[in-house]
Amino acid sequence: MRFLPILFVLILAGSSLPAQEKISLKYIDAADLPLTGKAVKTRYPYHRVDTSAYPALPPAVKFLLTESAGLAVHFTTNSTQIAARWCVRAEKQGSNLTPIAQKGLDLYIRHNGKWVYAGVGRPGDSCGNAVLVRNMDHSIKECLLYLPTYDETRSLQIGVEENASFNALPDPFRYRLLIYGSSITQGAAASRPGMAYPARLSRETGMNFLNLGLSGNGKMEKAAADMLADIPADAYILDCVPNPSPVQIRERTAYLVRTLRQRHPKTPIIVVQSVVREIGNFDRAAGARVAEQNDEIVKQVTRLQQSGVHDLYLIRGRHLLGTDHEATVDGTHPTDLGFDRMLQELRPVILDTLRRYGIR
Amino acid sequence: MRFLPILFVLILAGSSLPAQEKISLKYIDAADLPLTGKAVKTRYPYHRVDTSAYPALPPAVKFLLTESAGLAVHFTTNSTQIAARWCVRAEKQGSNLTPIAQKGLDLYIRHNGKWVYAGVGRPGDSCGNAVLVRNMDHSIKECLLYLPTYDETRSLQIGVEENASFNALPDPFRYRLLIYGSSITQGAAASRPGMAYPARLSRETGMNFLNLGLSGNGKMEKAAADMLADIPADAYILDCVPNPSPVQIRERTAYLVRTLRQRHPKTPIIVVQSVVREIGNFDRAAGARVAEQNDEIVKQVTRLQQSGVHDLYLIRGRHLLGTDHEATVDGTHPTDLGFDRMLQELRPVILDTLRRYGIR
Repeated sequence: MRFLPILFVLILAGSSLPAQEKISLKYIDAADLPLTGKAVKTRYPYHRVDTSAYPALPPAVKFLLTESAGLAVHFTTNSTQIAARWCVRAEKQGSNLTPIAQKGLDLYIRHNGKWVYAGVGRPGDSCGNAVLVRNMDHSIKECLLYLPTYDETRSLQIGVEENASFNALPDPFRYRLLIYGSSITQGAAASRPGMAYPARLSRETGMNFLNLGLSGNGKMEKAAADMLADIPADAYILDCVPNPSPVQIRERTAYLVRTLRQRHPKTPIIVVQSVVREIGNFDRAAGARVAEQNDEIVKQVTRLQQSGVHDLYLIRGRHLLGTDHEATVDGTHPTDLGFDRMLQELRPVILDTLRRYGIR
Repeated sequence: MRFLPILFVLILAGSSLPAQEKISLKYIDAADLPLTGKAVKTRYPYHRVDTSAYPALPPAVKFLLTESAGLAVHFTTNSTQIAARWCVRAEKQGSNLTPIAQKGLDLYIRHNGKWVYAGVGRPGDSCGNAVLVRNMDHSIKECLLYLPTYDETRSLQIGVEENASFNALPDPFRYRLLIYGSSITQGAAASRPGMAYPARLSRETGMNFLNLGLSGNGKMEKAAADMLADIPADAYILDCVPNPSPVQIRERTAYLVRTLRQRHPKTPIIVVQSVVREIGNFDRAAGARVAEQNDEIVKQVTRLQQSGVHDLYLIRGRHLLGTDHEATVDGTHPTDLGFDRMLQELRPVILDTLRRYGIR
C-alpha cells in the first residue's frame, strides 16, 4: 500500500478529540515515594522481592520478581492534568497481553468512596511519556497509579501542573493478604494493570491483596516456600495450581503448607484450585492435565488437613470462568470478563474465610 | 446446515512445525475457499471492500477496509491437529490490543450445536506459524477460523494432518446484517478476533452480522454512505456515533439515512448511540463531547423519523458498559467484559427489531 506510513499515524493517533493546549508540568520521582502493594521492602523500589537473599530460587522466579505487578503510587493532587514519564526493561511483547497491561500505567481516582477509572498511560517501546487524564476540575483528587504488570519498571516520574499540590500517601489498603500464584495472579490477561484480579480485590474491599504472581513459575519450589514464609501476612492465598505438574503438586504442596504453618501458626492458608483450561475443550491432553492438577491439590490439602494442619482451606474452581468458554484470551488466561466471573465466585468465599479471623 | 460439494483445494507441501509432536501436515490455501463474513466480493480475498470503486473515500477508510475484521474460514476436518501459516501487513502494534486480536487467528469448533472456543494462532511479527489445537479425537469437526481484526491478512494456509479430510463450507450464518461503525465495531478491544461483538452476535444467533467497523473513521462521509448503500443487506446497523464530531453528526446523518432508505426502501435501519466514554469520568471535555454526540444523534434520528423516514430505529446507550467504569481497556474501547455487557443490552433490542421483519 503506497500511503502506509502517514496513515499509520493518522489511524493510531485515533482520538478524534480536538488538539490540547500545552500545560507546563513538574515531575515528581516516584522512587522517593512510598509504594502501595509492596510485600517487602526492596533495594530497587519497583521490584516485588529482593531475591539476592534467596540464591536458590530458580532464575525465572528471580526475573519475574523484578516485574512491578500490583505496585502502585498513592497520592493527592489538585492538578487538572496528570502525566507520567516512565521506562521499563522492555521485554518481548506477550501475544496475549495489551501493551498497556504489560508495560503501561493505569490511574484511578477516589470518587464518593470508590476507586474510579481515570486514564491509562500508553507505553512506548522502552519509555513512555503520556498524559493520563486532562481537563479535570481543580479539586483535590486522591489518586492510585498502577505500574506495569509484565515488565520491570526502571523509572517513573509523575507529572502535575507546575503550581499544583502533590502529596504522597501511604498504602491505602488494610491488612496484608499475600497471593502466591501463576501468570493469572500476576495479571494475564487483564486489559490494564489495575484489572489484575489482586488489584481489583484491593480496590473493591479496601484490603491489601499483595501480588506475588509468577508467570508460568508459581511452582512451589522449596526456595519459593522459604521466601514466602519470610514475608509476614494476615493470610496466605495459594493460587499456583496451574503451574506445577501433578507430580510437583504431590511432591511440593506439603513442604510449602507446613513451612507456612510452622512459621505462622495462626495465619489462614487458602488454596485455590486452577481455573478450567479452555485449551482443553478439544485438546484431550490439556484437558486431562488440569483435571489431574486439581485432583492432586485436593488430595494434598485433604491429607494435610487430616494430618492436623489447621486453618487450611481449599476453594474449588469448577465454574470460575463461567460455562460459555468465552472468558480467556488464549484458552488459559482470563480476560477482564474471566476475572470478573472469577471474582464473583472467589470473592465471597475468600472474604468469608478471612472474616473468621477478624479480617474485614 | 447446507454442505457444499467438496471444493478442489490447493494442497501445499507440508513443513515441520515448531511442535511437540512430529505430525506431518498438509496446508490448504484459504484464498481459494469461500469466506464467512464477507459483505461483498473483493479482488483480494481478505479485504472487506474493494475500494477502487470508491475513489472519494478518505484514504484512512480505504486502508481500514483492507483489514480482515470479521472474516473467517468455515470448514470440516477430522484432523486431530489444526495449524496455520499466515502473513499480515504487520501494522504497528496498538497499545490497547493484544497481538492475538490484532493479527492472530481464533478457532471455534461446533459442539452440541454451539460454537466453542478451540484455540488461537499466536502471531509472529509479520508471519505466524502455529498449531491452534492438537490432541483432538478423530471425529469430523466443524470449524470456524477467524482472521486478524486489525491488520491486513496477506496469506493464510490452514494445516491439517496429511491423511485427514478437509472440506470447505459456505458461510454458516443466515441473513446479511451490516454493521457500519467505529473501532468498537471493528473489534477494539476484544481479546481475540472472535470476541469482536459482531462475531459474537453471529455465533450466538446464527445470523450474519457483517463487520464494517472502521477504527476512528466511521464518520458517515458521503462516499461512505454511497458505498454502504451499494451493499445489499437485510438490516443496516449504524454504530458509528463515537467517531464523527457533533457537527459532523448534524451534517451527515440525514444523507446517510436517506441514501440507505432510498436505495433500500423496506430495510430496517438501526442507529445505536455511543457507549459512554470512561475517559470522561474526570476529563470534563471528553465527557461533554460524548454527551453532545449522543444528543445530536437523537435529534437527527428524531427529525428524520418525524419527516417521514420509516423503519428507522434508535437504540439508546446509557448503561451499555455497566456502571462500575471497569469495562474498557483505555476509557474508550470495551474489553471482552465491556462487550459482554454491551451485548446483554443490545442483543435483545436488536433481535426484537429484526424479528418484526421476519429476521430470526
